[in-house]
Amino acid sequence: MTGGPPAQEAASEFDTDTAIERVGDGRYRGTVTDRWDVLAAPNGGYLMGIGLRALADALPQPDPLTVTGHFLTAARPGPVEVAVETLRTGRTVATGVARMLQDGREFLHLTAMFGELPSADAAETVANAPPDLPPPDDLPRGKAVSPDGRPVPIGERFDLRFPPGVPGWLRGEPTGEAATAGWFRFADGRDVDPIAVPQVVDGFFPVVFELGVIGWVPTLELTVHIRRRPSPGWLRCRVTTRHVVGGYLEEDAEVWDADGRFIAQSRQLARAPR
Amino acid sequence: MTGGPPAQEAASEFDTDTAIERVGDGRYRGTVTDRWDVLAAPNGGYLMGIGLRALADALPQPDPLTVTGHFLTAARPGPVEVAVETLRTGRTVATGVARMLQDGREFLHLTAMFGELPSADAAETVANAPPDLPPPDDLPRGKAVSPDGRPVPIGERFDLRFPPGVPGWLRGEPTGEAATAGWFRFADGRDVDPIAVPQVVDGFFPVVFELGVIGWVPTLELTVHIRRRPSPGWLRCRVTTRHVVGGYLEEDAEVWDADGRFIAQSRQLARAPR
Repeated sequence: MTGGPPAQEAASEFDTDTAIERVGDGRYRGTVTDRWDVLAAPNGGYLMGIGLRALADALPQPDPLTVTGHFLTAARPGPVEVAVETLRTGRTVATGVARMLQDGREFLHLTAMFGELPSADAAETVANAPPDLPPPDDLPRGKAVSPDGRPVPIGERFDLRFPPGVPGWLRGEPTGEAATAGWFRFADGRDVDPIAVPQVVDGFFPVVFELGVIGWVPTLELTVHIRRRPSPGWLRCRVTTRHVVGGYLEEDAEVWDADGRFIAQSRQLARAPR
Repeated sequence: MTGGPPAQEAASEFDTDTAIERVGDGRYRGTVTDRWDVLAAPNGGYLMGIGLRALADALPQPDPLTVTGHFLTAARPGPVEVAVETLRTGRTVATGVARMLQDGREFLHLTAMFGELPSADAAETVANAPPDLPPPDDLPRGKAVSPDGRPVPIGERFDLRFPPGVPGWLRGEPTGEAATAGWFRFADGRDVDPIAVPQVVDGFFPVVFELGVIGWVPTLELTVHIRRRPSPGWLRCRVTTRHVVGGYLEEDAEVWDADGRFIAQSRQLARAPR
């Protein structure tokens, strides 16, 4: 494990806004804030962070290795309840479900397996390379905007750095390829830990926009595999959509840390804009 | 939708061995047979077929669009109970959980969203090509064997056709690339429907074997996105592992049908052989 949380994390925006309180056996309460909104709806990766915190508290293993979220209905800023059920506790992994509810209605259903992430010196065989990007300090901070070009609250939470000319769709010049690559970090400098990885992979614009197909892209299901604990600092991300079929699309994301290590990959099934 | 089930399907091995009986509200019984064993354990894709049948019966939507299985502990041939809970029924999709139990103990936990697959003429934008393979009739039937080279029962259920020289590991000459491509169909000629797609993507040898890393590769979590209903006949598949990190690996599979249409993609998290 690389380093503990730096002192400033206690007050980070992500930690504050995903904080939960245990109110019973496997039962938690938290608050969905409006600071992670994209248009009128809180971002899915942010919501998963709240649920993962409850799972991390309830399960005996430390790190999320895989988490799948099924987005059942829209969430909104306000109180949230999380009910965790432990499905199985094994020697090296533990699996649990977190139901996230508002007004007694489940809006997000998480299933996750926790375990212990590989140590920093663990061997690997990786046939994949991080995207080639100019250093983040040489790039301007990207604007996070809604499909119609208006700034969105979640844009203030992230510091995204894109190569020149990206995103094309935002300049009215979609690149024609549903893919992008860029740097990610939290705007307040909080380092990304495993719990925050779903927020990273769900933190970019829908890359289908680069096909000129621009509109609301609701996530139906998002699965994230976390493979290593990121080192502190910037993350390098690649996001790709290869198949838009009959109103549905997948979006894949890959994440590398500042040391060039592969950290995570994700895939979501979403509705394509009409 | 392309065609109804041909007459022989009623007696197909897959249909017979995934058959379920409704015994109550959201409760089903079936039998895990030993015909889909890999060594001593039933194949995960086969087990998911039983659970998907229960979900298909319980949910109001016809087709699985995404399904995630968490493999909690080993199953064995014998009776199985399936308990389905409907999480949400919407206008176009419905989401449910299927718990699969033996002796009252849950061994496989499925979460799935059902809906209606795109019609055959639905528009698509696909930036991906099926693997280039010689026609299946020009290739010998592949052998399905355990890591130590012994035939496994599930090998008799499938007709797999590989290009010359594949698999390399089986000849003691791993190719050095954790990837393969080949043709799939059921040995008894049953066409693949959406319920059987998890069986297809979990039907190949673990491609990490081509790195010379050969042994037991237990699936921990498998997510399958089904994007179209396959046309009858052979399926073209590509299977890839790109990241083996500290004892875990992912395996991705892609499936095209006989018409060259993209049908499905999957990703599993598994333990790497030691």
